[in-house]
Amino acid sequence: MSFHIVYPRTVPERRPPNHQPAAPRWTLRWKAPVHTVISDYFAVQAKTLPWNLQQAFVDRIRSYFAHTDGPDAHEIMRCTDESEFANTIVVAYWLDPTKHARWKLFSSFAGWFDSADRLSENVGYWRETVIVPYDRHETIYSEPTYPIGLARCAGGSVEPMTTNGYFGAARDRIPLSAIDPLESPLGETPPPRKEIASEGRRLRAQPPLNLTAIRSGQFWVNAKTEQRTDYLERLQPKLVRGMKYLEENKEASGCLSIRNMNNITSAGEEIAETSTLAYFLSLGHLERWSESHETHLDIYRHAIAMNRKFGAAREVITWHEVFVLSGAAPFEYVNCHPSTGLLPYCD
Amino acid sequence: MSFHIVYPRTVPERRPPNHQPAAPRWTLRWKAPVHTVISDYFAVQAKTLPWNLQQAFVDRIRSYFAHTDGPDAHEIMRCTDESEFANTIVVAYWLDPTKHARWKLFSSFAGWFDSADRLSENVGYWRETVIVPYDRHETIYSEPTYPIGLARCAGGSVEPMTTNGYFGAARDRIPLSAIDPLESPLGETPPPRKEIASEGRRLRAQPPLNLTAIRSGQFWVNAKTEQRTDYLERLQPKLVRGMKYLEENKEASGCLSIRNMNNITSAGEEIAETSTLAYFLSLGHLERWSESHETHLDIYRHAIAMNRKFGAAREVITWHEVFVLSGAAPFEYVNCHPSTGLLPYCD
Repeated sequence: MSFHIVYPRTVPERRPPNHQPAAPRWTLRWKAPVHTVISDYFAVQAKTLPWNLQQAFVDRIRSYFAHTDGPDAHEIMRCTDESEFANTIVVAYWLDPTKHARWKLFSSFAGWFDSADRLSENVGYWRETVIVPYDRHETIYSEPTYPIGLARCAGGSVEPMTTNGYFGAARDRIPLSAIDPLESPLGETPPPRKEIASEGRRLRAQPPLNLTAIRSGQFWVNAKTEQRTDYLERLQPKLVRGMKYLEENKEASGCLSIRNMNNITSAGEEIAETSTLAYFLSLGHLERWSESHETHLDIYRHAIAMNRKFGAAREVITWHEVFVLSGAAPFEYVNCHPSTGLLPYCD
Repeated sequence: MSFHIVYPRTVPERRPPNHQPAAPRWTLRWKAPVHTVISDYFAVQAKTLPWNLQQAFVDRIRSYFAHTDGPDAHEIMRCTDESEFANTIVVAYWLDPTKHARWKLFSSFAGWFDSADRLSENVGYWRETVIVPYDRHETIYSEPTYPIGLARCAGGSVEPMTTNGYFGAARDRIPLSAIDPLESPLGETPPPRKEIASEGRRLRAQPPLNLTAIRSGQFWVNAKTEQRTDYLERLQPKLVRGMKYLEENKEASGCLSIRNMNNITSAGEEIAETSTLAYFLSLGHLERWSESHETHLDIYRHAIAMNRKFGAAREVITWHEVFVLSGAAPFEYVNCHPSTGLLPYCD
């Protein structure tokens, strides 16, 4: 079997009539039913973060994962954020919310993370737990050959699809979008950002209903000279420009937080694999940027051109996963700088 | 159409092979897709609560409901709780989480409820919001003639079913139970109850994953002498005994909180309509009591006997609605006594 959820549509689909994509794309399905998907981000943060502190954090989190209810998959990344702080980030994926809840309750993580001792270290810590019912997520991969993100979990199956190649395809891939426009209860404009005295404090920010998390990535470890050069010299600068626009135009774009992350090895070396984690006030805000803003159209056009040029011989893999939140636990920030993640929207 | 969700089963159903119920029962379906169901309880509480204070509270909450994003239905009830405090309770139902979130953000309710002024009144207030994806709920009604609880919302359709008349039928009616055993991450035993100094304070208690809320009711407004007498003299005492057992045996039963409520008119008069709101650590705990404890078997046997005796001429309507929680917002208690609801399990 290939598990998926489909609702009888009451909200019009965005697929144009008779649309057939120029090139197939791939999406994640499951061999057994999966009703909840979880991506849980754990991070250490400091103005300067020597490798030994990063390594100690990664080793610690990994030791907590070595538990019967630990995650199904995880990755290690690094990010210099918009305040020029270094963040080392572990993202972990679970497919079972009861296991995830038991891990939170019974692993040694909580005792360490919740301790008041965390407030007086020379580093900050944050945790952003993205947990959604299956019908609130979608995935797309340019190739089926490299399982990444949620697709690293055992039991997945990367399958071809044709819900791609038009504006609105991401929405159409989210099962719930068939019966809910997934609007933000806050409307069009994000709440004003506040400068909160966050250092030395533990603060929580509640993600609003339908906040939309996207992790969008690139993997070019196996790209040979021509395509690697094209990626690094022509596509990557466009990506950087697009991300910079969102970072600098949060209110106009509805992008509340954005981080550009680089996967690293256990020895701390950056590899040819990057991704961006961004939160938009709603899926509509993400769509508006991607459909109408020059910085994204520029990325989109180049990606399509390279698709045409290299076809099945493409060596740079691009992908994303989108989660539309509901009933999320608060994101938590411990001794972090005030621009971290959703902290500026903390009550 | 009749909207419903069915998953390919990986957890065995509890229906015995070839089971056919002796009598049909009824359940709630929807004419258009409904992906989330919400029952939101608002209450005022005091040792003695004169009608003018109850009325002022009900009028106030109803005035907040008169908002474009207000609830689809609501009821007014009264309860004397296990600490002998009076509680006047408004339960409101929504079918759209975005409307519910907008109501919370933009009606005048939050400004009033969140105000520090609430801490220094002579009464307490509490709010318990039960919000679950559709696949985490089930309903049963003995008759289709009196829409009650969630079924008061427009767009519902009370339809006959045969998933009833055996132990485990409630579980089988919850769509998600086909692919998840719905266990508590906390295991078999509830956390220890604590006596928290709650008066004059605003406290929040986080419902754990898979906490199971049941509202189980009786409506005998239209019962004539014979059946009314049977209900009041023979069934009601068994119900009272069963509820008392749960109230006095929380740790053994896994029932964390239980309230016996009586519907009232706008003038404060009690009518022939009651219901019990209870929270069990998990659906399995609720099942264990109902399948094996003498106090429930006694209720069950009497209900079946009266079914046989009166058949289609039954004049006492019984029903329930069950919600298995995930991603719930914390329940909130303002200046309440320490045994209120989930307050004894507050962190």
